[in-house]
Amino acid sequence: MRVPPVLPGVALVVGLGLIGGSLAALMRASGFAGEVRGFDSDAATRARALELGLVDSVSPVLAEALSGVGLVVVAVPTLAVESVLSAVREHAPRGVFITDVASVKGSVLDAARRVFGELPAGLVPGHPIAGSERSGVEAASPGLFRDHRVILTPHEGSAEQALDCVRQLWTLAGASVVCMGAHEHDRLLAFTSHLPHALAFTLVNVLSRQDASEDIFRFAAGGFRDFTRIASSDPVMWRDISLANRSALLDAIDEFAKGLSELRGAVEFSDGERLHAAFSAANGVRGRYLQTLVTAAHDPSAEPGEGA
Amino acid sequence: MRVPPVLPGVALVVGLGLIGGSLAALMRASGFAGEVRGFDSDAATRARALELGLVDSVSPVLAEALSGVGLVVVAVPTLAVESVLSAVREHAPRGVFITDVASVKGSVLDAARRVFGELPAGLVPGHPIAGSERSGVEAASPGLFRDHRVILTPHEGSAEQALDCVRQLWTLAGASVVCMGAHEHDRLLAFTSHLPHALAFTLVNVLSRQDASEDIFRFAAGGFRDFTRIASSDPVMWRDISLANRSALLDAIDEFAKGLSELRGAVEFSDGERLHAAFSAANGVRGRYLQTLVTAAHDPSAEPGEGA
Repeated sequence: MRVPPVLPGVALVVGLGLIGGSLAALMRASGFAGEVRGFDSDAATRARALELGLVDSVSPVLAEALSGVGLVVVAVPTLAVESVLSAVREHAPRGVFITDVASVKGSVLDAARRVFGELPAGLVPGHPIAGSERSGVEAASPGLFRDHRVILTPHEGSAEQALDCVRQLWTLAGASVVCMGAHEHDRLLAFTSHLPHALAFTLVNVLSRQDASEDIFRFAAGGFRDFTRIASSDPVMWRDISLANRSALLDAIDEFAKGLSELRGAVEFSDGERLHAAFSAANGVRGRYLQTLVTAAHDPSAEPGEGA
Repeated sequence: MRVPPVLPGVALVVGLGLIGGSLAALMRASGFAGEVRGFDSDAATRARALELGLVDSVSPVLAEALSGVGLVVVAVPTLAVESVLSAVREHAPRGVFITDVASVKGSVLDAARRVFGELPAGLVPGHPIAGSERSGVEAASPGLFRDHRVILTPHEGSAEQALDCVRQLWTLAGASVVCMGAHEHDRLLAFTSHLPHALAFTLVNVLSRQDASEDIFRFAAGGFRDFTRIASSDPVMWRDISLANRSALLDAIDEFAKGLSELRGAVEFSDGERLHAAFSAANGVRGRYLQTLVTAAHDPSAEPGEGA
C-alpha cells in the first residue's frame, strides 16, 4: 500500500500572479495545507490576494513569510527564481519542500546549484502547461489547471516525499502529472512553445516594417489572427524564457530555419512535387495530431492547455 | 446618377467547390442572373450541385456550357485557370464578362495574356478573402462571403460595365469590395496569408522529424494548435499558390528569415534588451491590430475572413 504523501503544515506561495494565486486558492480551498501564506513584492497584489481570499495571510517580508514553512511554491518570472531560492536557503527550515512553475527547468536547477551548492532533496521543479492571455492576481482561480498537463522534473536526489507532495498538489488541481528530465522538458518546450512564440513575434515585426504594413494588417485574414495570437504574450516573460532556454531555443530556431530554407528552395525552383509532398506531410501530421485530441476526448487530461 | 450595372442574362460558374458553389447559389437565389449554369469536371459534384439547388443546370461539356453566357466565374484551382480561359476564348461570346476567385492575381493576368494575346476588356480578376477549413460543394452557401473582404484587380483596359457587374455580384454577397493592382494584391497576400501558411507547414514538418516528435505533439499547447491550424489546408491549393506567387512569396520568406536571424542573434548573445524590445514591439503592433478589429465592430466589412 502506498503511503499517503506528507502534507505541508504551512505552505508559502511566492509570487501571487495568475499561476501562484491560483495554486494558493486551490491549496486553501482544499485544505491541502493547514495555512497558506502569500508573498508578493507588490503591495497592491498582496492586499488583493488577501481580499480575494486566495491566501490566509500575506507578508511584506519574504524572510518572515518563510519561517516554519513546509512547502514553498516559487511562482515568479523565470529569471527571478534564483533570488527567491537564496531567501529560502537562508530563512526556510532545512528539508523544506520546494517547487516552482517556471517555463524553463534547466535554469532552475542551475540556480539551485549556485544557491545551495548542490540540489536540495526537497526540490521538485514543475511546469504547468497552462495559462491564458490574461495574467495577474485578478485572474487567479483554483480551477485554472483542471484538465491541463503538468510536467515535473525531479532530479536524481529529489526525496520521494517531496515528489509525492508536489504530485499530490497538482493532482488535487485536476491536472495530469508527467515526470521527465529537465533537459528533455526544455528541449520539448523549445519546439512546442518557445519556437512558435519566436516565430509569431518575428512575423508580426516583419510585417509591421513592410511599406504596406497598414494594408497588411487591414487585410490580414483569420488564419493570421490565430497564428499571431501568441505574439500578444508578455514581453518580459518571453525575454526571460528566451534567455533561460537559450541553447534549446537556438537549436529549435536552427532546425526551423533549415526547414524554411528547404521550402524556399522548392519555391525558387518551382518544384511542385516537393511542395505538394511537404504540404501533404504537414497536413497529415496535423490531422493525426487533431485525431489524438479527439480520441483522447474521454481523458480530459489529454487536452492541451495554453501558454508557455 | 450612376447607371445600374449590366446584369448577365446567363452566368456560368466553372468549378463547383466551396467558393464556386456558394457564388452560384447566391446568383440563383438573388436573381442576379436570369440563368445560372454550372460546370465541374467531376460528375458527382455536378450532380450534387444540381440536387442542392445551387445552379439551374449543369453540363458535362465546358464548350457547351459557355454558349451564350454573359458572365463566367472561374472558380478552379489557380493553375487550372489558364485552360478554362482557353475554353472561354474559343466558346464564349465576344465581350463576355470574366472574373475569377484565385488567390494569386498576377498569374491570372499572365494566363489571360497568353490565351487572348492581350487582356480582354471583360476581365476583372477577383479574390474573396474568405474560405474555411471545409471545402467542396457540400459546404457551399450563399452566405459564405457575408462581412468578408473581396479584392478586385481590374487591369487598365477593364471595361467599366464589367467592373460594375462583378462589383455588384460581390456587394450582393454582402462582401466589402476593394480594388487594387494585381501586383499589390500578390505582395499583400504573400505577407498576410502565403508566408504564414509556409511557416505553419514548415513548423509542423520540422516538429514531426524531431526524435521526440511523439512527445512534442502530445505536449503541444493550445497556442501551437492555433498556430498550426492553417497547416491543415489543402496541399494542392497551396502548391499552386506557392508556384503562382513565387516571386512575392520568396521575398516574404527572405524578409522573415532575416527577421528570424536577427532574433536568433539576440538569443545567441543573451541580449535581453533587444529581446524585450522585439517582443514589446510585436505585442504593441498586435494590440493595435486587435484594436482595429474592435473599433471596426460596427463595420462588419472590416472583420477579417479566413483562408487564402
